[in-house]
Amino acid sequence: MPKQRSEEYRGFRTAGIRLTEELLPTIVSHRTDKVLAALYAVHAFDKAHLVMLTEEALIPRRDGVAMLRALRDMERDGIEQTRLKHGGGIHSAENYLIHRLGEEVGGRIHLGRSSGDLNQTYQHTGQRDRLLEVMDEVNGLRSAVLPVAQAHLESIMPGYTHGQHGQPISLGFYLAMWAAVLERDFERLLQAYRRVNVSPTGAAIMTGSNFRLNRERTAELLGFDRPASNALDVIHSHDRLLESFCVLAILNSDLGRWAEDLVTWSTSEFAMADFPDRFCGTSSIMMQKKNPYAFEFAKGQGANAVGEMVKAFIVEKGPTGWAIQDRTYAVEGLWRVFTDTVRDLRWFREILPEIRWNTELMRERAGRYWAQATDVAGALVAEKSLPWRTTHQIVGILVRLSYERGFTPAETTPALLDEAAIEYMGEPVGLSSEALRRALDPANFVASRTLIGGAAPGEVRRQLAESRARLGVDEKEAAAARQNIQQAAKKLEAAIDALVGS
Amino acid sequence: MPKQRSEEYRGFRTAGIRLTEELLPTIVSHRTDKVLAALYAVHAFDKAHLVMLTEEALIPRRDGVAMLRALRDMERDGIEQTRLKHGGGIHSAENYLIHRLGEEVGGRIHLGRSSGDLNQTYQHTGQRDRLLEVMDEVNGLRSAVLPVAQAHLESIMPGYTHGQHGQPISLGFYLAMWAAVLERDFERLLQAYRRVNVSPTGAAIMTGSNFRLNRERTAELLGFDRPASNALDVIHSHDRLLESFCVLAILNSDLGRWAEDLVTWSTSEFAMADFPDRFCGTSSIMMQKKNPYAFEFAKGQGANAVGEMVKAFIVEKGPTGWAIQDRTYAVEGLWRVFTDTVRDLRWFREILPEIRWNTELMRERAGRYWAQATDVAGALVAEKSLPWRTTHQIVGILVRLSYERGFTPAETTPALLDEAAIEYMGEPVGLSSEALRRALDPANFVASRTLIGGAAPGEVRRQLAESRARLGVDEKEAAAARQNIQQAAKKLEAAIDALVGS
Amino acid sequence: MPKQRSEEYRGFRTAGIRLTEELLPTIVSHRTDKVLAALYAVHAFDKAHLVMLTEEALIPRRDGVAMLRALRDMERDGIEQTRLKHGGGIHSAENYLIHRLGEEVGGRIHLGRSSGDLNQTYQHTGQRDRLLEVMDEVNGLRSAVLPVAQAHLESIMPGYTHGQHGQPISLGFYLAMWAAVLERDFERLLQAYRRVNVSPTGAAIMTGSNFRLNRERTAELLGFDRPASNALDVIHSHDRLLESFCVLAILNSDLGRWAEDLVTWSTSEFAMADFPDRFCGTSSIMMQKKNPYAFEFAKGQGANAVGEMVKAFIVEKGPTGWAIQDRTYAVEGLWRVFTDTVRDLRWFREILPEIRWNTELMRERAGRYWAQATDVAGALVAEKSLPWRTTHQIVGILVRLSYERGFTPAETTPALLDEAAIEYMGEPVGLSSEALRRALDPANFVASRTLIGGAAPGEVRRQLAESRARLGVDEKEAAAARQNIQQAAKKLEAAIDALVGS
Amino acid sequence: MPKQRSEEYRGFRTAGIRLTEELLPTIVSHRTDKVLAALYAVHAFDKAHLVMLTEEALIPRRDGVAMLRALRDMERDGIEQTRLKHGGGIHSAENYLIHRLGEEVGGRIHLGRSSGDLNQTYQHTGQRDRLLEVMDEVNGLRSAVLPVAQAHLESIMPGYTHGQHGQPISLGFYLAMWAAVLERDFERLLQAYRRVNVSPTGAAIMTGSNFRLNRERTAELLGFDRPASNALDVIHSHDRLLESFCVLAILNSDLGRWAEDLVTWSTSEFAMADFPDRFCGTSSIMMQKKNPYAFEFAKGQGANAVGEMVKAFIVEKGPTGWAIQDRTYAVEGLWRVFTDTVRDLRWFREILPEIRWNTELMRERAGRYWAQATDVAGALVAEKSLPWRTTHQIVGILVRLSYERGFTPAETTPALLDEAAIEYMGEPVGLSSEALRRALDPANFVASRTLIGGAAPGEVRRQLAESRARLGVDEKEAAAARQNIQQAAKKLEAAIDALVGS
Repeated sequence: MPKQRSEEYRGFRTAGIRLTEELLPTIVSHRTDKVLAALYAVHAFDKAHLVMLTEEALIPRRDGVAMLRALRDMERDGIEQTRLKHGGGIHSAENYLIHRLGEEVGGRIHLGRSSGDLNQTYQHTGQRDRLLEVMDEVNGLRSAVLPVAQAHLESIMPGYTHGQHGQPISLGFYLAMWAAVLERDFERLLQAYRRVNVSPTGAAIMTGSNFRLNRERTAELLGFDRPASNALDVIHSHDRLLESFCVLAILNSDLGRWAEDLVTWSTSEFAMADFPDRFCGTSSIMMQKKNPYAFEFAKGQGANAVGEMVKAFIVEKGPTGWAIQDRTYAVEGLWRVFTDTVRDLRWFREILPEIRWNTELMRERAGRYWAQATDVAGALVAEKSLPWRTTHQIVGILVRLSYERGFTPAETTPALLDEAAIEYMGEPVGLSSEALRRALDPANFVASRTLIGGAAPGEVRRQLAESRARLGVDEKEAAAARQNIQQAAKKLEAAIDALVGS
Repeated sequence: MPKQRSEEYRGFRTAGIRLTEELLPTIVSHRTDKVLAALYAVHAFDKAHLVMLTEEALIPRRDGVAMLRALRDMERDGIEQTRLKHGGGIHSAENYLIHRLGEEVGGRIHLGRSSGDLNQTYQHTGQRDRLLEVMDEVNGLRSAVLPVAQAHLESIMPGYTHGQHGQPISLGFYLAMWAAVLERDFERLLQAYRRVNVSPTGAAIMTGSNFRLNRERTAELLGFDRPASNALDVIHSHDRLLESFCVLAILNSDLGRWAEDLVTWSTSEFAMADFPDRFCGTSSIMMQKKNPYAFEFAKGQGANAVGEMVKAFIVEKGPTGWAIQDRTYAVEGLWRVFTDTVRDLRWFREILPEIRWNTELMRERAGRYWAQATDVAGALVAEKSLPWRTTHQIVGILVRLSYERGFTPAETTPALLDEAAIEYMGEPVGLSSEALRRALDPANFVASRTLIGGAAPGEVRRQLAESRARLGVDEKEAAAARQNIQQAAKKLEAAIDALVGS
Repeated sequence: MPKQRSEEYRGFRTAGIRLTEELLPTIVSHRTDKVLAALYAVHAFDKAHLVMLTEEALIPRRDGVAMLRALRDMERDGIEQTRLKHGGGIHSAENYLIHRLGEEVGGRIHLGRSSGDLNQTYQHTGQRDRLLEVMDEVNGLRSAVLPVAQAHLESIMPGYTHGQHGQPISLGFYLAMWAAVLERDFERLLQAYRRVNVSPTGAAIMTGSNFRLNRERTAELLGFDRPASNALDVIHSHDRLLESFCVLAILNSDLGRWAEDLVTWSTSEFAMADFPDRFCGTSSIMMQKKNPYAFEFAKGQGANAVGEMVKAFIVEKGPTGWAIQDRTYAVEGLWRVFTDTVRDLRWFREILPEIRWNTELMRERAGRYWAQATDVAGALVAEKSLPWRTTHQIVGILVRLSYERGFTPAETTPALLDEAAIEYMGEPVGLSSEALRRALDPANFVASRTLIGGAAPGEVRRQLAESRARLGVDEKEAAAARQNIQQAAKKLEAAIDALVGS
Repeated sequence: MPKQRSEEYRGFRTAGIRLTEELLPTIVSHRTDKVLAALYAVHAFDKAHLVMLTEEALIPRRDGVAMLRALRDMERDGIEQTRLKHGGGIHSAENYLIHRLGEEVGGRIHLGRSSGDLNQTYQHTGQRDRLLEVMDEVNGLRSAVLPVAQAHLESIMPGYTHGQHGQPISLGFYLAMWAAVLERDFERLLQAYRRVNVSPTGAAIMTGSNFRLNRERTAELLGFDRPASNALDVIHSHDRLLESFCVLAILNSDLGRWAEDLVTWSTSEFAMADFPDRFCGTSSIMMQKKNPYAFEFAKGQGANAVGEMVKAFIVEKGPTGWAIQDRTYAVEGLWRVFTDTVRDLRWFREILPEIRWNTELMRERAGRYWAQATDVAGALVAEKSLPWRTTHQIVGILVRLSYERGFTPAETTPALLDEAAIEYMGEPVGLSSEALRRALDPANFVASRTLIGGAAPGEVRRQLAESRARLGVDEKEAAAARQNIQQAAKKLEAAIDALVGS
């Protein structure tokens, strides 16, 4: 019916309608790129919206059916290429439908919608789906950590503070820490997931619509938990987006720290860990090199996640609803962060069981640089009833003497200890050789850490059992969420079948 | 017993013990400052630890009682000044006790502890207590928003996108958005609270202790939900700290946006909102000025919260346990962010009910710049069964004509609409005057947004009722958390009474 | 000569040499992408290195000539596609040459080089070339600003502080500010340019080479000012990279602020500026919208530039030389920031002369909300010899009265001023009607700002003349830099001709 | 003359003038704190402004003299405490003068000024003075680095990439890198200094004044290079502030990297560097610890400088002149960053000459993990005319064999090299024992790096001489700047003497 033929339709923003010039090509390109990552989410919303419009008789049934059929044709021909041919953006289905069916029919799809709920819906869907993907990968990594930890309950190694040897721990205890960290990451991801899985559909640009849209229906067909309760809020408050950035930044900060540990341990000087070659590069000039590429990327991704988060916070600064195109920078960054987070979680999961640990060297080091000194002071408290601080100072003097005179912990004698005691308090302490030997044994150090949270093998076994139980619960949680989304997708297809088949 | 007299004790790190030189004064100062903010949390831990050591007979009962009595004396004399006199840091109680009671007694307090669990405990306590304080203030602001929103269900105003008039909304609907935003902020705060309210006490520096500490007991006396399950994790994983920064950055980003709205609305050009004078400054040269100081600080705090968060993420980069003194920058920043967050929440709460809204101008503006255009197109769909896109384009042309020829929405006639329709599709649309008039009325626009999430007065009333109900639940949640902490404080004093009194 | 046939050569990192497994495909892809942006810079280095090796007889002349000929063939066939076919990374020329000429010949190109100087050379070249491009665009924008400023020396408008009307200024004065800002941006860009235009070629990975490379020669052929003086520094210190991020972040912060001004001024409420339609979008639902897309992207790019800068600072954290693959995230981000900076500078340059300014409204507003109040107090100082603070307070009271009673500045009378004076100091001031009228005229306000730096038309004309002169100098500076690079490119081709032609 | 007695004057912003309520105390406190850091700069501006007003007869000479005398009294009584007693902010001198001399006299100081140029002047002065202080400290550190570098031209050590041994270098060469880095830092500081040392005095809030202020005179008396050329620009463009943050962030990123090197080298595993005890802490539980506190703070300050920079960029986002109180967060952060930068530069300067380097271990390590492998391949090129890539691959195989079979570089024989060659290309290479031995000697590796920028002792000596010469030039530059400021201070006192003495 418009004078312009439908086959020539280039989208609603053409010169001669509201505005008098065509949009600058350098601007158009941005609009297209932004949406590529979310084409399938937009596609699903297009279908759900058409089903609802048709079911509610807000458009002629015949037109609704024709459009749904055309979208199925598009699926057969390839969603991406077809949509790219029709502008590629969030309105590519409308462009396509007008081309195929004329504006008289295709011009009806957008009733009650706006770019606002289109954008926000694909952002909610995208965040939800990718959060779920990350949750699954976090669980995958947890399931990979637990058996390695279990296998190393007695692999003694130094624990570090300030980069210095602190106390002896075990590799299993260290890995049990990662299981605990990833549990909290899972929690944060799940909580973000629940906040984001509410439906913007039917919120239009801020007030909803004065047409009788069925918001519950589209929410149901797209797997959302419910329609958002305030339309202005769901379109123009973006704390959920910021939260996704935050939980990913925290997760990647965790993985980055892990990567830093492993890179450090793989140096010639630490020599504690060796990685499978396929994760490593070499050099075009220094052919001896075995460079820990995967962990370097993981460290870089830690930086990336923070930088992208910062962008998002800055973009969101300003009055409500003012930043729209600006947000392109934030949204594009988010998908990149998700992608590389999944990549890193998979790498960690694959590498971890294949790392060759130099357990012998680790054990030897754990006792070589006085990491066990705490227990020498402890033995003096236990056996001689001295105050902790007194024994602490005495052993501090002992350690200084050991560096000044060049004896090692293993070479330490009760006499040397007495010399330190005399220096501190004017009299010897008289610890037995046997007690000193026991106090100097790093394995004994670890074995005696039986308190809740301690490093003793039995206690770490308990921690791992707890982590395993918790992982089971979390896996069920994630599976239920995934199933809910899959069932919605089935419902959507069934609803289309019901309309198209009739 | 040590040669050095107890009155001269200057802390365990003196020249002649492990190290040969005194610590540089420019470094000492940093260690003191860091802890000032957390003195009371350290003090509580000192007491709980002594109670537990005494109850478990890990130190002589007489010594435990003497130390607890001395700490009560300190409370009488003033915790801050006494501790500052004794170094001011996390070990100020030990210094004080050794001065008063001699190393033979005071030297026993630190048994089984380390600076690690001291630091981490005050950080957990500090985060927990301040998160709770922020939660209370968020709830306070929610309770202030709801009645103002209720009072403005029919105060029509323009809603904005891209800084341009989008659609008519009501001020009540806008404020209902903020109630919804703050609900999510509360959720995030509470979830962070629960993750952080686990006890590091007894984790020492990473392995716990080989003395039979009762970790459940100190956790109970300090109001923690439970002892942390892996000692290495609770001391050296700092995702909880990052999460506190994140939830505060999101909250302050929300408040910053609100401040941006209000600052913009208070310009001479927008002229929609006027603030109580006590929140405003004037100028030393431009005496006409009324500058919105409070909201400027709130905007600045939005930036502050992000900058401090960035610091923390950078500080945490590195191998596990390496960054310790570095973390001073992160931890100090966190307390500042908490403090100014509370300040801003209180300001908002106080200002909000006193803002003078220029509702007349807001209403007039809502219909002056075509914000209601959506409904003209909608009327053509509803009455003429035209496709949405066709009516959208016709009204787009109409708006362009209005700017080219200088007529306002109120001056628009069916004839002008027909002219646009003819330009688009070669024929008029024939909308009745009455239908056109109704479509052009912004109040009618708002009244017809009755879908879930819509802007219609009745629907916003429903949203506010929902928010009120939710607020009630959340207030109970916060009160229960607070009560739990208070009861623990009482338990701690009762346990001391039981020991000291005997 | 190697057992593996040259046609099968897949690069030096193949399983069976130093390492036993092929590199993971998900890692390989990162290495390729990183370099795409810098392919031409790598290509130029490949040629210059071969020229130098051949001239210095470090490889057989025949082999050098054969490789240079093959690279000319590559140029004919298309550098990008040929290199992508051979791995796409910085070693794509070596792969190509070995395929074509056998390892016996092509295996000689990399003598004395490493991935280190390859990477760093393209980064220096890339930064240099793009800094220069940005410098040219900054100058282009300066040349666009000056005539618009000149045309608006008498377009009176309000100047803002705290979002409130501060004092009357002129649009020309406002635009003269931007000329001054861009001057400083140019300075920073030029200074960064000079620091980065030193040559990493021949620095290899950190120590240079024990082959007699001619570092001056490759530096000359690639247009660098000189070889870097410390090889470790030029490869592993990345402050230059951080500086590029910083100068771009500052420039984009400047443009972002300008965009914020213009977006604000284009609101219906401010209504001071209207942009060409081709830079604006409309809405799929709110067809009345004219959204300032270009400036929204510029605002977003302000955020983008900061976020990418943050990434780079975080990536660089760590010991010297440890972060290598991590840096991918920083380097890729830098090219994106450059690209969008150029885009925005071009947009500003194109839009600026076409903005329709509502000069009438601006002028009216400049006197409507007491922006001129400063001069009423000034008149009392000048004519009545009162202290500034006394007159300031009197006029402060006058302004308050005007809001309480609803009179405008134009309606103010000497009697009202006297009323305020009596309220403040118990007696009238007796300013003449004429003096009051003059003090209340915003145009007079501006005209009297004749001090250096002032807003008076004549003074702004002087500022613009100064800016124009400075622009001339800076344009010559940029042109000289560009010419230097172009001459180097010619020298390189001439050197190849001399070898290949022989 | 005002009804309120001068002794009761509480500043111009009191209830009853423009506004009807007193400013909220929680807001007042912010205004005071902000300015403390800059009290002396404000004080100097106060004096220079009064001198100029008096000289130009813009206020009665008698009043000008009385006020200057009163300010000298204030200096005698203590500037800080006197000003704090009078509100503490930028208007504390006015408050003080009105109290002492009555509003009739003291009310004249602010003529032609605003809070705008007061704030901006102390910010320019503060940045200038502190940049100069940092420049001096950077030069101090450079002067400390050079002799240490000179002393270690032959201290062979491993150079690292990817955390792995790359090539042998010398400690002197490594330190020469730092001299080069600090040169660029000095350049950036100086360039920022020059941009910031222009005078905002007399720019008032954006338009200057219509009183005949002598802007050149106040600029001269405060040591500025010239008055700023556009008053709006100098008050409301803050790229100079951002630039100060940026140059400090880069400098602290450099120092942070250096600290990371040293912390890593001081681990038990690397064991290459040992620091003076006074810069180190120990532990309250692990008495063996010697924790590198100073470098940990330097690392933290690297994070701090970036976080504060981010704040500033975010604060500055928004329309021109809108952010005022918001900027408090940025400005306060800047002074903190300056302070800790100076602290760290001093620490580095003091520590560096006292570090105990384990040169024997460093030398041994440099040849133990194949860092010298490059030269084995190089020897094959030089002696056997093989292509580089072929020799690279052969040695790559050799290194793999060494790890598989457990022989060290020192144990490598020509036969093993031949075995690798046969594996790669089917035939041996026949390198002589002597050539292999030479190629495997790390000292020889370093000695042969004689190219410009290389690691050879003679070449590093040249680099250090160049650095020393450059340092001499830069020290003169800094001294001249400092002298200029000191002379201005003398001029100011002389001008006051001339007025007060008359």
